[in-house]
Amino acid sequence: MSRVLGVIGGMGPAATVAFLQRVQALTPAGGDADHIRVVMDLNPQVPDRNTRPGEAEAVLGEMASGLKTAGAQVLAMPCNTAHAQGAGIRAAGLPFIDMIAATADAAVDATIGGGARRIGVLATPGGEALYQAALAERGAEAVLLAGEDRAAFMAAVYGVKRGDRGPEARAEMRRLARALAAAGAEALIAGCTEVPLLLAAGDVDLPLTDSAEVLARACVEACLEGAASSVG
Amino acid sequence: MSRVLGVIGGMGPAATVAFLQRVQALTPAGGDADHIRVVMDLNPQVPDRNTRPGEAEAVLGEMASGLKTAGAQVLAMPCNTAHAQGAGIRAAGLPFIDMIAATADAAVDATIGGGARRIGVLATPGGEALYQAALAERGAEAVLLAGEDRAAFMAAVYGVKRGDRGPEARAEMRRLARALAAAGAEALIAGCTEVPLLLAAGDVDLPLTDSAEVLARACVEACLEGAASSVG
Repeated sequence: MSRVLGVIGGMGPAATVAFLQRVQALTPAGGDADHIRVVMDLNPQVPDRNTRPGEAEAVLGEMASGLKTAGAQVLAMPCNTAHAQGAGIRAAGLPFIDMIAATADAAVDATIGGGARRIGVLATPGGEALYQAALAERGAEAVLLAGEDRAAFMAAVYGVKRGDRGPEARAEMRRLARALAAAGAEALIAGCTEVPLLLAAGDVDLPLTDSAEVLARACVEACLEGAASSVG
Repeated sequence: MSRVLGVIGGMGPAATVAFLQRVQALTPAGGDADHIRVVMDLNPQVPDRNTRPGEAEAVLGEMASGLKTAGAQVLAMPCNTAHAQGAGIRAAGLPFIDMIAATADAAVDATIGGGARRIGVLATPGGEALYQAALAERGAEAVLLAGEDRAAFMAAVYGVKRGDRGPEARAEMRRLARALAAAGAEALIAGCTEVPLLLAAGDVDLPLTDSAEVLARACVEACLEGAASSVG
């Protein structure tokens, strides 16, 4: 029997559902019963993580405790930005898979071996700060969007939250990825769970580490205790 | 603030995720906060509803109670077959949206006005029995698959649970829909939540009522208290 995964979701709603799909796709399963049991609180009303961080931390902590009561044994949150409020979640006393650390590890493993030390980060301002610190700890440098491109990135993210995942939105995210390459990035991190809804690995020439994919894989490994290591 | 939806899921896992996507797609939202909060227990280890119905009913009841504790105010279960064990869920004391009743209502509303009284049902044996009774109560007749086609249907459903949603599986589900038309069906019910993963409304000539779509719409209406009636 696998461990029960608790998902702290809703930031945003579509990104959470896409994350659940990835967890299922990465689970070796011949039928329903092989899949991981997931208890989820998809809460789209978590206070704004940028403007009301203290309230957000308290709500995330309540969600984590609720999921523990509901049977969760491992916690994950498919939202990079909200990891700044991770202390509230850790207070619930369950293992919490840190998406920022896992993604930074994966990006550095994939790129520094190939010589890349400048890693472009597509993330919200809060996510950028988390990745800057995490990459610095690992001997790499974060390359960030500048000026109007930062605003354009946030517009694309809020567009996804309104349901806009059309060709223009996808073209805009490709343009932003190329802007990071032009600024010197040798590899990229999709450091916001809305990004993979607009950008796939084949859309860019640089190696792309997708935080949602990294987290989903880490969740499957944690819940199946190693069985997922055989999954491609 | 909308009401919190509790989703009793995992039967199967992919169908549950597709259901969450539909709920979001049917919710009028300009941003995250407009979406419905969803607490979910995706439990792929619910005992077999055909061979161990008593145990299944007990587990579904525990899941319903757990979701109530987690804050659910309205319950829904995107699995037609398991509605035979609905008594366990109703014992939790929350409003439970009956997928079979809602789908039978929708199919009869859509078709009897147009003269159709023979409605083909794509469902598991357990689901067929539920729809036969529900349609009879509403003055319509269920047309069911016969012989080898019943086995072929179950093979397609179990294929989806293994992740097989490819062109051959889709062609097979279209063939089964046509078999119901040949047997006299004037309209169709996709009465198993795996069916819409293989069959879309445009794939068949008959009017198709999709139980997952009906349930998602009913959930949005119940949680937003009528706001969803303006959604197309």
